[in-house]
Amino acid sequence: MKPFSQHARETVAQHGEVALIEAIRRWLGPAAPPSPTGMGDDCAVLAPLRGRPLVTVDPVIYGEHFDDRTTPREAGTKLFRRNLSDIAAMGGEPVAAVVSIACDPSLRTAWLEGFYRGLAAESRRQGVPVVGGDLARLRGGLVATLTLIGRCHRTRAVTRHGARCGDWIYVTGDLGGSLEGKHCRFTPRLAEGEWLAGQRAVRAMMDVSDGLAKDLTSLQPPRSHALLEEAALPVSPAARRAARRSGRSAVAHALTDGEDYELAFAVARNTDLAAFETRWRRAFPRLRLSRIGHFAAVEKPIPVGYTTLQAHKGFEHLRREPARRR
Amino acid sequence: MKPFSQHARETVAQHGEVALIEAIRRWLGPAAPPSPTGMGDDCAVLAPLRGRPLVTVDPVIYGEHFDDRTTPREAGTKLFRRNLSDIAAMGGEPVAAVVSIACDPSLRTAWLEGFYRGLAAESRRQGVPVVGGDLARLRGGLVATLTLIGRCHRTRAVTRHGARCGDWIYVTGDLGGSLEGKHCRFTPRLAEGEWLAGQRAVRAMMDVSDGLAKDLTSLQPPRSHALLEEAALPVSPAARRAARRSGRSAVAHALTDGEDYELAFAVARNTDLAAFETRWRRAFPRLRLSRIGHFAAVEKPIPVGYTTLQAHKGFEHLRREPARRR
Repeated sequence: MKPFSQHARETVAQHGEVALIEAIRRWLGPAAPPSPTGMGDDCAVLAPLRGRPLVTVDPVIYGEHFDDRTTPREAGTKLFRRNLSDIAAMGGEPVAAVVSIACDPSLRTAWLEGFYRGLAAESRRQGVPVVGGDLARLRGGLVATLTLIGRCHRTRAVTRHGARCGDWIYVTGDLGGSLEGKHCRFTPRLAEGEWLAGQRAVRAMMDVSDGLAKDLTSLQPPRSHALLEEAALPVSPAARRAARRSGRSAVAHALTDGEDYELAFAVARNTDLAAFETRWRRAFPRLRLSRIGHFAAVEKPIPVGYTTLQAHKGFEHLRREPARRR
Repeated sequence: MKPFSQHARETVAQHGEVALIEAIRRWLGPAAPPSPTGMGDDCAVLAPLRGRPLVTVDPVIYGEHFDDRTTPREAGTKLFRRNLSDIAAMGGEPVAAVVSIACDPSLRTAWLEGFYRGLAAESRRQGVPVVGGDLARLRGGLVATLTLIGRCHRTRAVTRHGARCGDWIYVTGDLGGSLEGKHCRFTPRLAEGEWLAGQRAVRAMMDVSDGLAKDLTSLQPPRSHALLEEAALPVSPAARRAARRSGRSAVAHALTDGEDYELAFAVARNTDLAAFETRWRRAFPRLRLSRIGHFAAVEKPIPVGYTTLQAHKGFEHLRREPARRR
């Protein structure tokens, strides 16, 4: 849906602010608890939070993360899930969200409704209330920013820092070609992240949002690099289709397309991998887990059949080239 | 400063994302704690939070909340303080901030530096770290969104709901004319808010951001309205100057200009006001406190010298009229 309309009566400018906030509350339904836990005060007041609080923030921007082909529900779902994926990457549990919208007054009321209904559906699915937000004017644009509060309660928070030379690299699910649809319809790996945080062998973890080739550099231990076994990479069918259209290899798509929202993590080198993988399959029989390589000292030669991250390039957020939907 | 530049070498697009994030970390200095408490992971991991957590989010948008006359430092300071003011309005204590920037790649690096240095200065002043954020592309625009986590630890959270008919209305500081400079240089009333939350007589509180005439409606008890004594309103010198230019009354400016970031609160009708006001003056000898009216049943006649909120109009966030800096 095109977010903006030339017909004043279809737009948010038609409604007073009070009426619009009332409508948002209605669209969110049970996803919006009453004040002061929810909308309607200067701050949202949450219940005391046991464990260590987590905070993450990510936007969706018209022309960057979604476009006219995206339904407003998908935009809302995507915004929520991007942030849930960050909580998953620490092994955390999501607690509450706030959403700040900056939009042109010509934004369609129907777009805003669909967007909030998308947020509400995801909120219900995950049991995470939308407790507040803000609505402000941005001439000619549309930016929705969600901040998600979570916590690490039952387990530690798994950071990106902790992998050592020799550790194994794993990734969940498939990679690549997410523009075909997954970028709006992925499943944040919350249960998996929490389970992995409970496994002592897991030393570092992150979610794959800008493409594995770019993201994995954050997990690399000092003086080491990731050696990826090309044949072990879980190349998605969408990446293979994209490769046929682009002329680039399917592996390149898998490593650089981004928006996979899968978990990548390092497992201690001395781990009993067979036992670890069996435990995984028992816990998550339907989600593919791939051991895709290991961290090796940079001075060692690169074995045949392996690739390094340097050979590929992930997504750069402030390029000047024409917008690409992601 | 104009945020955008035609000269590529002056812009953020010149820098890779990694270099830019490194620079942001440098500009923030001690305001940015090391990962995982700070930037550099999927989420920021905070120390366990005693008391009830508070969450608030507010943006500053180029062309709306600041313009070319605003220094980037002022924009950063304003963004931080707007959110601090919301924490103050609950009687809370700020804990940590995350900042999400959406900007055109032609954003001047110097602008971004000034902005983050403004955030850093405010962070130091309040002892509130900037623990994370996001940087994304927005064609032709600039939106910075700050989410502030706080807590109510020593006192309750004072909400907007709790005033009763007959209660007195107070406001801190002066009102009106903030565009003259206060809108970027106000002091969030954190100590005052926490003190007021400790006073049992204070039944409801909020900060004044869209103008008292609009904001106070949120404090009104059912079937009551705010009766304001015109002579008691703390009209700022800036509001008087604005009145001379605009031809509107200084009282109208005080009630509708907005961006005062003062605290408005309701005090129980049966309170010993002289004792309450004496306690205030002892705690905050340099900040004016004004008793500006009370909540009265709507059916009662309006006494001479009093005005109601209906007579004035605060700031509407999604008007279609030309942008006004605020």
